[in-house]
Amino acid sequence: MGDALIAPAAIDQYRQLSELVTPCALIDLSLVEKNIARMNASAARAGAPLRPHVKTVKSVELANMMTAGHSGGITVSTLAEARYFGAAGFTDILYAVGIASAKLPEVADLRGQGVDLKIILDSAEAARDVCDWATSQQVSLSVLAEINADDHRGGFDPDDAALLEAARILNRCDFTHFAGVMTHAGGSYDCRSDTELEAMALQERDAVLVSAERLTQAGVACEMISVGSTPTALHAPSLPPVTEIRAGVYPFMDLYQAGLGLCEPEDIALCVLATVIGHKPRLNRLLVDAGALALSKDRGTGAQEIDRGYGLVCGLTGNVQHRLIVETVNQEHGLITSSDQSPLDFAAWPIGSQLRILPNHACMTAAAYDAYLVLGGQGDAVEARWPRCGGWTVA
Amino acid sequence: MGDALIAPAAIDQYRQLSELVTPCALIDLSLVEKNIARMNASAARAGAPLRPHVKTVKSVELANMMTAGHSGGITVSTLAEARYFGAAGFTDILYAVGIASAKLPEVADLRGQGVDLKIILDSAEAARDVCDWATSQQVSLSVLAEINADDHRGGFDPDDAALLEAARILNRCDFTHFAGVMTHAGGSYDCRSDTELEAMALQERDAVLVSAERLTQAGVACEMISVGSTPTALHAPSLPPVTEIRAGVYPFMDLYQAGLGLCEPEDIALCVLATVIGHKPRLNRLLVDAGALALSKDRGTGAQEIDRGYGLVCGLTGNVQHRLIVETVNQEHGLITSSDQSPLDFAAWPIGSQLRILPNHACMTAAAYDAYLVLGGQGDAVEARWPRCGGWTVA
Repeated sequence: MGDALIAPAAIDQYRQLSELVTPCALIDLSLVEKNIARMNASAARAGAPLRPHVKTVKSVELANMMTAGHSGGITVSTLAEARYFGAAGFTDILYAVGIASAKLPEVADLRGQGVDLKIILDSAEAARDVCDWATSQQVSLSVLAEINADDHRGGFDPDDAALLEAARILNRCDFTHFAGVMTHAGGSYDCRSDTELEAMALQERDAVLVSAERLTQAGVACEMISVGSTPTALHAPSLPPVTEIRAGVYPFMDLYQAGLGLCEPEDIALCVLATVIGHKPRLNRLLVDAGALALSKDRGTGAQEIDRGYGLVCGLTGNVQHRLIVETVNQEHGLITSSDQSPLDFAAWPIGSQLRILPNHACMTAAAYDAYLVLGGQGDAVEARWPRCGGWTVA
Repeated sequence: MGDALIAPAAIDQYRQLSELVTPCALIDLSLVEKNIARMNASAARAGAPLRPHVKTVKSVELANMMTAGHSGGITVSTLAEARYFGAAGFTDILYAVGIASAKLPEVADLRGQGVDLKIILDSAEAARDVCDWATSQQVSLSVLAEINADDHRGGFDPDDAALLEAARILNRCDFTHFAGVMTHAGGSYDCRSDTELEAMALQERDAVLVSAERLTQAGVACEMISVGSTPTALHAPSLPPVTEIRAGVYPFMDLYQAGLGLCEPEDIALCVLATVIGHKPRLNRLLVDAGALALSKDRGTGAQEIDRGYGLVCGLTGNVQHRLIVETVNQEHGLITSSDQSPLDFAAWPIGSQLRILPNHACMTAAAYDAYLVLGGQGDAVEARWPRCGGWTVA
């Protein structure tokens, strides 16, 4: 994967934006490249390679860009992604959601096809279940322990006796290999300043380092020590002996990341193209054909200093309209108004005209689409259609 | 469509729930049948036929159930749905989102294939655009005026001069046919009592009746007078001369509808099957593998008397756990706790066990899945897999 092409994989159409049927998801490749370069530089400074999380982009072309010049390891959030990226030639994959036994046949099938798919768990019970299943099926599995860095999700506490117990169960079992520890500081999304983000990045690192040290002292080696989130990765301290950084939303960024101070709205590479379908001057409201399904109902910015509603409006060329937000969504309708109650200039947004909407949360918004339309050239035409993987359905 | 089979269309697998890879969307057919029968009875009492809105179910098999014994007319929210249901033999379709001119080629293509696809608009500008396009392309289009019942979305105000102007533009044009008026009382979702719902149903009816009367007096006939939402349809007054009722969420219902007093959680026919992947006794928390993508980030019940978080938990057989809710979601993780802070009984929810989660908003949750797994028999096995239509991509 390391030497994959960065250029669009297939130019199967060249369409002006005005020809597109809305809503659709657009990506600006020059911004994607800039955002990836920034994360690569941050990881290099921190002294640990990236294992990009492809849960946001779910696109082979974008994953190729994220792993260009890397070892090619990736992180996935579903087994559907594992199969999709495995079929595209990615062979070093970490499935970063606690495993359930019913998923082990699919994991084993992918491993049998040459994908070194690693799984995670956070209890001695799960370790026993995985060992029992692997033994009964005579298939080998590679397993990491998830570590709790901030009470945000799952994971063993670093000082939990069950962590050692689980690692020993996996190490003693003939069919499982204990590969190390990983954590995700989801709490970074609640930080409010660079100082808080730096502290959270240290806390994330120390959670796995303390855990790995305990395991090593108990005679259990950790070949992988994995951390990551986009906010902590951009504020990472010196990381070694951490072996890798996982981050996912960074190629696109979004309004939530902008609210964390990690980018400007102008840096966001993913947007939804929508069409104005109605004017309501009495209510100071524009109607567009991108609603709850096209934008998602993520309201993450509602808890931030600047509330972006369900998205921030840009003109057709991407010029950000800082006071125009999607205030309300119905299933297929977005209602746009001004965040400061200033009167809308309806003449600037005629019925039938198009506009762009930046997402609160790129992972949620992108998930509504089966492909990205890739902007090239002057940013006014589509040069490629890049499919993406969705859902959870496995073979 | 009227005589379509109600029985599952294809039994291509018979799986125990324990064999399913989670998350997945389950539907209980006996509850679907009960909910449809209730809406059919309500429409019969109100004296107007249903034109079911298939935006929630997006499934041919379920649309067949919703239109059994009806004329077969349906409502759609996207052109992808129009094509999908058109290909399945539905020929009387109302596309109930204000039209954008860039979508007219697809509308015309479907009409050319024998689908009587009707469109809506709410401005004289849009009427002119539609007339100009139809004339330039020499194709006939059928158009309704959207009416504003409650300032909830779009639509002409009933007394707006532009309503008459748009109808006249469409009537004078050789290639467009003005078919009538339609409205949707989205405000019904903000009602807090049966009395308020009954008042909203009257307001919705009167908005179109006043509009149709004005048009008739101006010499423009309204062959279609269309109203509807599930809450108003279940509280409808005598509706004639209204010609049809549109409603969509009623086969499934959801927690929001339950919060409106329209059903009990036990009546909800759609759920997400999830697996317990972690225990956090210190935080009184269960982790499951159904998160923001599997459940949606809809927080509609947050504004209701009983806040259901991101969903209400049931046992594997559907037994509702009234104090267990999904408190937080990450992309692929749901964090379950008790709504009253009472301690969870972790032994009752072992790691690897499955549970069901009822959705806040069925339309949003169902949209994450490419198929429903249909429960039959004792509700413990899957008898069919019914595909659904998603996205907006057209030919």
